[in-house]
Amino acid sequence: MKWPQAVTIKEVGPRDGLQNEKTFISTKDKVKWINQLSRTGLSYIEVTSFVHPKWIPALADSEQVAKNILREKGVTYAALVPNQKGLEKVIESNIDEVSVFLSVSETHNKKNINKSIHDTLPILKSVIDDAKCSGKSVRGYLSTVFGCPYEGDISYGDVLKLCDELFDMGVYELSLGDTIGVATPKQVEDLLTLLLKSFPAEKFAMHFHNTRGTALANVIASLEAGITIFDSSLGGLGGCPYAPGASGNVATDDLLYMLHKMDIHTGVDLKELHKTAAFIQEKIGRPLSSHSLLVESNKK
Amino acid sequence: MKWPQAVTIKEVGPRDGLQNEKTFISTKDKVKWINQLSRTGLSYIEVTSFVHPKWIPALADSEQVAKNILREKGVTYAALVPNQKGLEKVIESNIDEVSVFLSVSETHNKKNINKSIHDTLPILKSVIDDAKCSGKSVRGYLSTVFGCPYEGDISYGDVLKLCDELFDMGVYELSLGDTIGVATPKQVEDLLTLLLKSFPAEKFAMHFHNTRGTALANVIASLEAGITIFDSSLGGLGGCPYAPGASGNVATDDLLYMLHKMDIHTGVDLKELHKTAAFIQEKIGRPLSSHSLLVESNKK
Repeated sequence: MKWPQAVTIKEVGPRDGLQNEKTFISTKDKVKWINQLSRTGLSYIEVTSFVHPKWIPALADSEQVAKNILREKGVTYAALVPNQKGLEKVIESNIDEVSVFLSVSETHNKKNINKSIHDTLPILKSVIDDAKCSGKSVRGYLSTVFGCPYEGDISYGDVLKLCDELFDMGVYELSLGDTIGVATPKQVEDLLTLLLKSFPAEKFAMHFHNTRGTALANVIASLEAGITIFDSSLGGLGGCPYAPGASGNVATDDLLYMLHKMDIHTGVDLKELHKTAAFIQEKIGRPLSSHSLLVESNKK
Repeated sequence: MKWPQAVTIKEVGPRDGLQNEKTFISTKDKVKWINQLSRTGLSYIEVTSFVHPKWIPALADSEQVAKNILREKGVTYAALVPNQKGLEKVIESNIDEVSVFLSVSETHNKKNINKSIHDTLPILKSVIDDAKCSGKSVRGYLSTVFGCPYEGDISYGDVLKLCDELFDMGVYELSLGDTIGVATPKQVEDLLTLLLKSFPAEKFAMHFHNTRGTALANVIASLEAGITIFDSSLGGLGGCPYAPGASGNVATDDLLYMLHKMDIHTGVDLKELHKTAAFIQEKIGRPLSSHSLLVESNKK
């Protein structure tokens, strides 16, 4: 096997992690945490979401967070944006990059943003156009790529079609999300074999949740396919508070443990990362699902 | 990638799982649980250890367990044996197969069985000889293969040498243990590349702990190398009770979720397995670290 020399980690804990936590983290602590993350060597942090607070109360302070964090040189600060209104706030808040999102599953898209895929696409198009006019790069999320809680299996042909549409609209990269953590390495291999016939591997990031413990195995299958960009949340944030260890994104620190020990560079300082994981774990008030964080805690 | 059509699961929960749990499971419940496991389609169960109760109080009732479990046709019942005394008990208890064990790390071997590797080998030799004379098959465990808590990195040359010695002594299979859960897929690939130059893949089982969340990723690397036998513990039993989700063997149910969804057959009924995982979880009295068990529990 040929492993890559380096991969890029996109830290999504402040957005995808916190949005699924019941505990509200104060604006001051969010800012403090993101500033800590900025000093770990991470080159990319998705700091918040400009979705309406009614839908994501945990990130109701998105503008304050975006405006108050320190900007570290070499770090891209991104935010999730559902529509024009969100985009306006992003522009006011000095965020570098915009993330737009869409589900491959029609039912999940409707439940998530109350619109059909067909009706969502023109909205994304106008957000992408305007973001680019304002000098922002735009990344896309495709969710429920490996399975949907409502529709079950997803057609890889549908994924391919939506990748095509979103790249055409001008996103520079697509993050392929295993939103409910059902994927296995064979699915990853099968989907990527299909997609990489049409697009270069550099256009994709993989976004795994660890709901069934398969996230790192799926990372391995992705690396073998040539993928070198991964989304993750520090500590595995995002699990349901009533189901410790269950869900959440793949933990950045577990991912880095594996990658670094495989001589794959990330530029991130794992020791510093564990310190800042301990900080956010304390604020969340329950043990996070990261394995390596627990190993570190037990050393003390 | 070519995935195998089928793999063999060796359930070690009643031995490796329970021996690391603080909660003592009553003999009656152990027997009940093993009888349940026997009806799930598993073809191999390591039911106990004949190590002195002073060292493993959790399995102090090994003879009672071994004598009282029902024998299901097609299931091999194995037990861990450190010496001649243990072997005598195995023979009295109608156990099919004997497992002997040795660490690759000199320090770990001394801490574990109070002898150097050099002094352990003749004991293993006589246990293997006598077990075979009594019609028992003998499997070997090599532990700390990917790292040792005292010595750190392990030389793959040392692993190869001990594989050679143990196969020469007559073990039909060696289980390579990542005892402290430090391995990554690259290490698995590197070690297996070396070993499979000398021995066929069918001679090895892999035995991963999930301490740092890498166990299923390591299974993927093993499958790619041609390995088709894996040890696992139902529910991920074996974690430290003060560190939920941390340690323990890779969970049989998580492993089966991944394998079955990759169209790799095991012959085991995952639904039945989850039922019996719920039974032992209740007896242990804390949530086990298995991800798929938690997903099942949350459905109810």
